[in-house]
Amino acid sequence: MQTKSPVIIDLKFDQEQVAAALKGAFADREVINLVHPANRNRDLSGIDYAVVWKPGADLFSRAKDLKVVFSGGAGVDHVLTLPGLPDVPLVRFVDETLTTRMSEWVVMQCLLHLRQHQAYEAQREKRIWRELAQPEAKDLTVGIMGFGVLGQDSARKLKTLGFNVIGWSKSGRKVEGFETFDEAGLDAFLGRTDILVGLLPLTPETKGIYNTGLFTRLSRRGPFGAPVFINAGRGGSQVEADIVASLNDGTLHGASLDVFEQEPLPLESPFWGMDKVFMTPHASAASDVAALFRHVAAQIERLESGRPLEHLVDRSAGY
Amino acid sequence: MQTKSPVIIDLKFDQEQVAAALKGAFADREVINLVHPANRNRDLSGIDYAVVWKPGADLFSRAKDLKVVFSGGAGVDHVLTLPGLPDVPLVRFVDETLTTRMSEWVVMQCLLHLRQHQAYEAQREKRIWRELAQPEAKDLTVGIMGFGVLGQDSARKLKTLGFNVIGWSKSGRKVEGFETFDEAGLDAFLGRTDILVGLLPLTPETKGIYNTGLFTRLSRRGPFGAPVFINAGRGGSQVEADIVASLNDGTLHGASLDVFEQEPLPLESPFWGMDKVFMTPHASAASDVAALFRHVAAQIERLESGRPLEHLVDRSAGY
Repeated sequence: MQTKSPVIIDLKFDQEQVAAALKGAFADREVINLVHPANRNRDLSGIDYAVVWKPGADLFSRAKDLKVVFSGGAGVDHVLTLPGLPDVPLVRFVDETLTTRMSEWVVMQCLLHLRQHQAYEAQREKRIWRELAQPEAKDLTVGIMGFGVLGQDSARKLKTLGFNVIGWSKSGRKVEGFETFDEAGLDAFLGRTDILVGLLPLTPETKGIYNTGLFTRLSRRGPFGAPVFINAGRGGSQVEADIVASLNDGTLHGASLDVFEQEPLPLESPFWGMDKVFMTPHASAASDVAALFRHVAAQIERLESGRPLEHLVDRSAGY
Repeated sequence: MQTKSPVIIDLKFDQEQVAAALKGAFADREVINLVHPANRNRDLSGIDYAVVWKPGADLFSRAKDLKVVFSGGAGVDHVLTLPGLPDVPLVRFVDETLTTRMSEWVVMQCLLHLRQHQAYEAQREKRIWRELAQPEAKDLTVGIMGFGVLGQDSARKLKTLGFNVIGWSKSGRKVEGFETFDEAGLDAFLGRTDILVGLLPLTPETKGIYNTGLFTRLSRRGPFGAPVFINAGRGGSQVEADIVASLNDGTLHGASLDVFEQEPLPLESPFWGMDKVFMTPHASAASDVAALFRHVAAQIERLESGRPLEHLVDRSAGY
């Protein structure tokens, strides 16, 4: 029986979490965690698998014989731009954990805007007891850009809470129970959307897509008179100067941002101090590292027993 | 044909909202809105119906012939304690609008605690970019005290988000899909509960029920090491000095309060300034006044066409 190929780990995550999750993971093969100094100069040729999140620039030149690359998250833009990425299957991390965590965050942000949390916090600061006129979820339409696994799960949960929900994807993917729009329907989609939720992958086509031009096409007929922008996809898809200006001139009513053009968010960013913005440090759907390793082990098991890999990235589409 | 009885309106709500909602309501009968000075000394004898929220102390002595009293909200404690309440059917306001609004608030509060919103806000104030270890909804059990229409709707929505949900009511009401507990099972219920959601009516038995003695029986095995208390029922059910002390000594991890012993909340209350507490000014499930009048008109129509009234209050139980 052939020795099973080791797995290379190159994850720019919290290393305590990675170490904890590696205990008991990949019991049947060696793990080469590149964070350990002992592995800095190790020969990585002949190794089949790598699990990566923002991997070292030299990873692919060192590990020349990879048969599969596993992304440590749902997004793969951090891998696709690396020089020397081999032409092998690239598997994204799709996991119930990641999906449900993302939906928790998206639903919470939509509710924070619906229930005027910021206005109530401002009143509280002045010790003002005053009930505000309150629309309910059914008075608002949430438009989700990026209607894959994550977008659809958020959509179902938002609908249960009472929101109207519509979806947009480049291909106009049809999803039972939801009205969906394609590339040609973007204006119609935006014109109906009171709360825009961005869950798009970062590709050359989506870079900077969330800009003033797009914000001005959103609905202004909702109960707050101006739309809300929520981004849990990728910071590279947003033009932050436009978000700031749109919030200041009333083009946008509010925003929730989990991702930023530059991360960590620079200290001088205006977002830190803007009341109209809820923000989190790229924490909307933290990968559960233990779940990641279970997913990778399951995919390797599929491959080695002759079944096809799942959750493959379409490189021509960029996601 | 007999003239239809007028309807007395005695609602301590925002009077602009009441006036707007009265336009077009009760088209087939006279409306006597007691807020108008012209009605101050009006003879109210011979009138069948009154819609009330914190009504005047002399209402029932003036309107001696009421056949039905309609509460302006889901709660009826503000009516039951009034002197002279006639022994006629008392109808609570049950409305999809009120239920879905309450669930929006309850789900949002559970998510704010789950997703560590306060901790992220504290980091933001210091411009700290740091992802926190994050449990997911399935790692917590929400225990709902008061498992009627409101409690069950919140339960279903919390379950969709991934939370474990259990229910408690005095009678141990059985609800498909949920484990429920009765009076004898209170300790077992509390011992399983990481987030306690209070939706109990205010009765002599529930007065002051949320106190240190109860908080210490809640689970401490959840991911935050201490339980969270959320009250959207009645302020009279909580002992606020105990909540403050329990938050300060770590018996409670956090709280969300929409109701208070005294409302408006006095300026000197410590809750205004406590980071561990999310608070709103009795706004969790604002009655939609137009919906209230539709509900009352529908019930009057039932009664006058010989059908039984719905949503009757059980006075011996006090709710």
